[in-house]
Amino acid sequence: MATIHDVAAMAGVSVTTVSRVLNNRGYISEDTRRKVYSCMEALNYQPNEIARSLLRKQSNLIGLIVPDVAHPFFSELTSHIEYYAYELGSKVLLCNSQLDPVKERDYIDMMKRNRVDGIIMGSHTLEVDVYSNLKGIVTFDRQIDEHIPYVCSDNYEGGRLATRLLIDKGCRKIAHICGNLQLQLLANRRTDAFRHEVHKHGIEHVIIETDMNVFDQNQYEAYVNRLFADHADVDGVFATSDIIAAFVVKVCRKLGRRIPEDVRVVGYDDVNNASWFTPALTTVRQPLKEMARLAVESIRKQAEEEAVEPARMLPVELIERETT
Amino acid sequence: MATIHDVAAMAGVSVTTVSRVLNNRGYISEDTRRKVYSCMEALNYQPNEIARSLLRKQSNLIGLIVPDVAHPFFSELTSHIEYYAYELGSKVLLCNSQLDPVKERDYIDMMKRNRVDGIIMGSHTLEVDVYSNLKGIVTFDRQIDEHIPYVCSDNYEGGRLATRLLIDKGCRKIAHICGNLQLQLLANRRTDAFRHEVHKHGIEHVIIETDMNVFDQNQYEAYVNRLFADHADVDGVFATSDIIAAFVVKVCRKLGRRIPEDVRVVGYDDVNNASWFTPALTTVRQPLKEMARLAVESIRKQAEEEAVEPARMLPVELIERETT
Repeated sequence: MATIHDVAAMAGVSVTTVSRVLNNRGYISEDTRRKVYSCMEALNYQPNEIARSLLRKQSNLIGLIVPDVAHPFFSELTSHIEYYAYELGSKVLLCNSQLDPVKERDYIDMMKRNRVDGIIMGSHTLEVDVYSNLKGIVTFDRQIDEHIPYVCSDNYEGGRLATRLLIDKGCRKIAHICGNLQLQLLANRRTDAFRHEVHKHGIEHVIIETDMNVFDQNQYEAYVNRLFADHADVDGVFATSDIIAAFVVKVCRKLGRRIPEDVRVVGYDDVNNASWFTPALTTVRQPLKEMARLAVESIRKQAEEEAVEPARMLPVELIERETT
Repeated sequence: MATIHDVAAMAGVSVTTVSRVLNNRGYISEDTRRKVYSCMEALNYQPNEIARSLLRKQSNLIGLIVPDVAHPFFSELTSHIEYYAYELGSKVLLCNSQLDPVKERDYIDMMKRNRVDGIIMGSHTLEVDVYSNLKGIVTFDRQIDEHIPYVCSDNYEGGRLATRLLIDKGCRKIAHICGNLQLQLLANRRTDAFRHEVHKHGIEHVIIETDMNVFDQNQYEAYVNRLFADHADVDGVFATSDIIAAFVVKVCRKLGRRIPEDVRVVGYDDVNNASWFTPALTTVRQPLKEMARLAVESIRKQAEEEAVEPARMLPVELIERETT
């Protein structure tokens, strides 16, 4: 493989000059620049990015920590984040924390060692102190403290829209399946809105909290089975993800409940699946692509020491399909 | 942030000694080693991984190129690869090529510059020459040439099992929806098996090839609509992915065809969705987790200059659920 010395020798300049061209520093005549570039090309020279990032103090790496990239919500988020990172010339180091605090802490340490330009944190098992000493950080749907910027969508409004739709459609007893409320997530605002709406309209209701590891899809069917065993008269379900809603549909079908005639179902997120699902899911759409864009932009701004907005909350949208 | 100089000063040793401890080189007494480690801990010293990887000539980075991480098959693959990479102390640089040859080439160049220990290639738009000069490479479901190891499952057997099931269930006209056969993918063996079985049993059949960008989910519904418009008498469909199969179910429902009474459907992959889907999909399961393990292992072996098996083909399994 050609080295910087080979390029310098072929171009008849010093190694320092080649390095200046590569790093765009110091005065270099246009002629020299062109000569160096054409020699690099002729020799198929690949500058060593690792060495360069030591010089530049920027690694062009963005760390992304998600609980489970196999979950449709996070796989789509990851896809959008990769898209915007690539546009900036950055690469994504993917960390699948599986909500394991040890693994998550390990990854954060590793990212500090690798001098990532910043971390986009879509997971939420650790205490605040772990996030200190990072060059850049932005959280997804979690407000850690007032110093750490976050991106989210309007969870309260999403919960309100979902609950109101079920009430307006005539549901008399509504179940809400949500994540574990012990986790301090902004998604808990959906549950606040649910509580407020059912109380305001005097609707009978039940709230099912899932375990800490809310992304374990195998749990969902058991939760939904138990819900209908304990509350056979539920005629509306607001689930906090489309995947959970899919399991509600599955269990209802097994129990012979028709959708939407006997049970109405609203999901959350509007992942791709929601539209090719049969019946197509009514759901609350989060503007995932725009949220990803803002998260990447926040890391870029922090890396370049620009001012960053501490909180970005984007609007949600109710998408009515066949399950209501 | 504490530097290597702070650690050396606190431990009362030279910077060279700290560096030797970090890189496990040269003779260091157990006492000194312990003292250096406890000072690192006390100072919360994070060794600079970038500088270390220059020394070690190993970056502990594995590049992963997939066509679309938002596609359930690739999101699950990515999750498994991350799991096994983490076990080895490696990190995953994720590249979502979107089957864009320019982006893919760009990523491969970038990975060479970043001295990744190897690339796991799950995409397939480029010519063979681009893959030269890589420290390590393994492809997923594609045989590029005899020098590049690959991991796949038994596509021919998968195609045979799916087709035979539909024939055994009494289907008289079977459609097969596959990827674009111009792409030299091992998945094309599924279509070979389909052709062989329908000819052997004298079954009427139709083969629908999708566009090059077979991962664009929006296309699928149009293909399936056209299939049933042109061939109203199709009573069995073998789709080359569970997502395509999901669209077959969706279109059948819209057309009033009952599943499995009027149309039987077999998918491929057995992604998580396949089981929570309603009706639950009959499908051919690829041993994705084991395939991921072998791919990561191959990169590790190449990085450590061990012998690597050029081809690993794993068995598939027919999973009968409700659509047949």
